[in-house]
Amino acid sequence: MQKNNPMLENTERTELSSLGEFGLIKHLTQFIEIKNESTIKGIGDDAAVIDYKGKQTVVSTDMLVEGVHFDLAYVPLKHLGFKSVSVNLSDIYAMNATPKQITISLAISNRFSVEAMEELYAGFMMACAKHNVDIIGGDTTTSKSGLVISITAIGEAESDELVFRNGAKEGNLLCVTGDLGAAYVGLQLLEREKQIFLESPGVQPDLEGNDYILERQLKPEARKDIPVLLKKLEVKPTSMIDISDGLASEILHITSQSNVGCNLYEEKIPIDPSTYNMAREFNMDPTICSLNGGEDYELLFTIDAADFPKIKANPDITVIGHITASKDGVNLITKGGTSITLTAQGWDSLLKN
Amino acid sequence: MQKNNPMLENTERTELSSLGEFGLIKHLTQFIEIKNESTIKGIGDDAAVIDYKGKQTVVSTDMLVEGVHFDLAYVPLKHLGFKSVSVNLSDIYAMNATPKQITISLAISNRFSVEAMEELYAGFMMACAKHNVDIIGGDTTTSKSGLVISITAIGEAESDELVFRNGAKEGNLLCVTGDLGAAYVGLQLLEREKQIFLESPGVQPDLEGNDYILERQLKPEARKDIPVLLKKLEVKPTSMIDISDGLASEILHITSQSNVGCNLYEEKIPIDPSTYNMAREFNMDPTICSLNGGEDYELLFTIDAADFPKIKANPDITVIGHITASKDGVNLITKGGTSITLTAQGWDSLLKN
Repeated sequence: MQKNNPMLENTERTELSSLGEFGLIKHLTQFIEIKNESTIKGIGDDAAVIDYKGKQTVVSTDMLVEGVHFDLAYVPLKHLGFKSVSVNLSDIYAMNATPKQITISLAISNRFSVEAMEELYAGFMMACAKHNVDIIGGDTTTSKSGLVISITAIGEAESDELVFRNGAKEGNLLCVTGDLGAAYVGLQLLEREKQIFLESPGVQPDLEGNDYILERQLKPEARKDIPVLLKKLEVKPTSMIDISDGLASEILHITSQSNVGCNLYEEKIPIDPSTYNMAREFNMDPTICSLNGGEDYELLFTIDAADFPKIKANPDITVIGHITASKDGVNLITKGGTSITLTAQGWDSLLKN
Repeated sequence: MQKNNPMLENTERTELSSLGEFGLIKHLTQFIEIKNESTIKGIGDDAAVIDYKGKQTVVSTDMLVEGVHFDLAYVPLKHLGFKSVSVNLSDIYAMNATPKQITISLAISNRFSVEAMEELYAGFMMACAKHNVDIIGGDTTTSKSGLVISITAIGEAESDELVFRNGAKEGNLLCVTGDLGAAYVGLQLLEREKQIFLESPGVQPDLEGNDYILERQLKPEARKDIPVLLKKLEVKPTSMIDISDGLASEILHITSQSNVGCNLYEEKIPIDPSTYNMAREFNMDPTICSLNGGEDYELLFTIDAADFPKIKANPDITVIGHITASKDGVNLITKGGTSITLTAQGWDSLLKN
């Protein structure tokens, strides 16, 4: 883990103070190329200018704080940059829209080197290249302690393409993309190896054979492909949300905003075998990891039951439940057939730290 | 000062943990009303939706970090909220555009109470009401240490109304709104009284009679009126920027991006008498306070010399210099008639802390 820690770096180190604010920004942003016609003016003025020529604009923002959302003891800065952008773009895809621009604000302390910031920016730019998104502005400032990353993502959609959280209707099918819980068990693995490293620095971390769950935690992919796929399949979801806080929390957002109930079937929740096995190794219930783990950045959506034939053969989409009347509540139907009221356990616990 | 410090508050205190993330957000945003037709969807989904119906969109973002940009020992949270929004909107006005929406991301620790966050939000909303701006989204997360505020401001303009930094031409007049340096000497005064308070907690701060410079520091006003005034006067600036880092730094941005030189006349720089007197009390040169102090949030712009008759009678606009050829450099012509090359001293020093 040591080599990923910017504070322990033994390689070349250029102090941030050698460049200053404007020098640092210029240095980090020098290779940014504008890719979208809608970006009229990028970095370098009081504000950026965009023009979607009559389409609607969607805007989402997220803040990532060192020690809360990431631990630089095991998160490489390039991965962190990639993930920071991805989690923001995920919100734009969850609107069934296409992200086009981002702004990036950073609070950094002088324990970071210019090289460390280059790594972080390389991650930002890798994600932007993947999603064809322009970096159009930001702010770089000092921090007295940890690293803070705040990203605002902007995207476009025709107004009739947008999908909100509040459109789920009784009888709709509840669908999810990909599989769930991997990012959470990946985090548990990284935390375990960090503890071992702290107790016995000579011991090499044992991460072998766990590429999938580690990648899901360290380098999640926003589902750029899903809005495209749905359009191709001629399916417009009635509601949609991305899974950042865990399946349970997101289902509760949709049902509460749509004023409906839901039956979620435990046996239908897609869980990768490697997630399942690692959860068992930690004596955790894989279902609970999926429900409450979060950070999967898959899309959860509801569709009209008549659209089922269009999606049923697709390996990327799993039907996990159906929408009921509000009075029937939001329930998890367990593998044993028991119905349990679904509750969310998310970020709230953090504030109690 | 004591009563402004959220850590020392003796009044009612509700713990953040009693509400949780979603409860806190709901509590703080419950009174937000959408004012603009262009705000199609505000808080409550993965992203907000806006529609400027063919106009161009301008986007700017700023991050404010506790201990770097503000000191809660003497900054009331309501003022901080107001200022955080104002400094962002200032960037939109500097594009000659109209701000319409903002997103607000916060990193907060549990040393803050719900009441403290209500104060901060009251400040956000006061600034938004003043500028007719909608809060359309954000993120609220925990911080392991200080308070971090990241705001993205979004505005609209017809493409032919926008003013960039790079349009200044030889022979143009350099103009500034309002007066300069007050925010900086206001900060010096607050810092002095804080030191006295720390050394002798029984001594009441001596802030009497300094309302103007204190207000300029604690509750700066973004110049909403200037784009409106310029339109009325039928003057379109050739370049424009807001003064956040100090007059010198902003002049250098305009001249470098416009590839021109500039002569700035010391005697023309507008300085309020209270700024002048307080600077003298601190044995500081009032001109230096204006050049390097920053945080004035006035607008600096260049106009065609032919437009001079239109602005010359306006008490809010002062001509402080003129644009020259690039080869002539960027110079301060002192009251004694000496020409000195202008250099910027801004944020850079912070990174060396």
